[in-house]
Amino acid sequence: MQVKVVSRILQANDRMAEENRKRFEERGLFVVNLMGSPGSGKTSLLEATIRALKPRLRIGVIEGDIMGSDDAERIGALDVPVVQINTGGACHLDANMISVVLADLPLEELDLLIIENIGNLVCPAEFNLGEHRKMVVLSVTEGHDKPLKYPLMFEESSALVINKIDLLPHVDTDIAKVRRDALSLNPGIKLFEVSCRTGAGIEAWAEWLRESRS
Amino acid sequence: MQVKVVSRILQANDRMAEENRKRFEERGLFVVNLMGSPGSGKTSLLEATIRALKPRLRIGVIEGDIMGSDDAERIGALDVPVVQINTGGACHLDANMISVVLADLPLEELDLLIIENIGNLVCPAEFNLGEHRKMVVLSVTEGHDKPLKYPLMFEESSALVINKIDLLPHVDTDIAKVRRDALSLNPGIKLFEVSCRTGAGIEAWAEWLRESRS
Repeated sequence: MQVKVVSRILQANDRMAEENRKRFEERGLFVVNLMGSPGSGKTSLLEATIRALKPRLRIGVIEGDIMGSDDAERIGALDVPVVQINTGGACHLDANMISVVLADLPLEELDLLIIENIGNLVCPAEFNLGEHRKMVVLSVTEGHDKPLKYPLMFEESSALVINKIDLLPHVDTDIAKVRRDALSLNPGIKLFEVSCRTGAGIEAWAEWLRESRS
Repeated sequence: MQVKVVSRILQANDRMAEENRKRFEERGLFVVNLMGSPGSGKTSLLEATIRALKPRLRIGVIEGDIMGSDDAERIGALDVPVVQINTGGACHLDANMISVVLADLPLEELDLLIIENIGNLVCPAEFNLGEHRKMVVLSVTEGHDKPLKYPLMFEESSALVINKIDLLPHVDTDIAKVRRDALSLNPGIKLFEVSCRTGAGIEAWAEWLRESRS
């Protein structure tokens, strides 16, 4: 009974996601849905990515948070168009929320739209937004057991960005296991190791993202 | 419309939680619902807590994960009764799941039951399980903005355990802000700073937990 309700919600969401997708494609806009746990470093990765790509791509951002606008202010400081969604409690973004805020972005003037989802390694993976690619950020401090414990997120994502590698000497995380388990769930997933703090690995990641567009 | 569905689910859950609570109280069992992000260190805190309290309290554990039984195996190695719930995708435990597995635990022989929820800083806070206390674990690597971004979790919890303080020299997290924001959301919340890796702060936390029982 409960499952039925959920499946109807997901179907309605998929229809709306398809409409978003059409709007993106009409404008030649490449859209990425960035997901990960609270504190995995999604906003920091977004800042580093914008800095790396801004000279060559016109980038816009949708920030999803339960409440507050700290992240949108961080992104706005980089002088790119940004809209903040506050879900007021909901644990994921859905396609309808995205549809509503698209009017607040200059879509015709953008090449790449990055949507930062709510910090949550579970629910966002179930809701398509109309994006072309999902990406997941995982911090090395979260431990190496996460892909097998939260498989859907890794199965759905085109890339896994392993963040905070500057902290590797101070934690017991086995990155080889993270890579192995992510690939066992999703053999096509692209793996990156980065540190937003030191800048390590950012260039390779940003370059791959830029090339994914075409 | 969607909100209506959610509110009916929550009401049904609250009724079931009340039944669980009665079963706990009939047996004089103190029950804690341990929540936090993926990788915040819930299982490590549970291990350290069991080691600290086992000589004086009879402890049982319910492990919640989307899939797998790694955590239950870690806890079982400490020779306490443990049951693993696999939600198969659901992002939180609910009262019905708890009700179903209670038959698999020797409730009459326990003083303290700790339920480790799914790693998620959002959804678990909305679902009462019948527990006496909710507790939230936050790792210093998650950053100092988390209480204000995920307020319900901090409003609902009796204690906030700030974990991995051994990593403080390597991150930019302002712990004073975490403490201040958590207290502004919930002036009665009890704050602990611990490192499960070094053992720092574990004794004070475990002692407080033991005393909360009475």
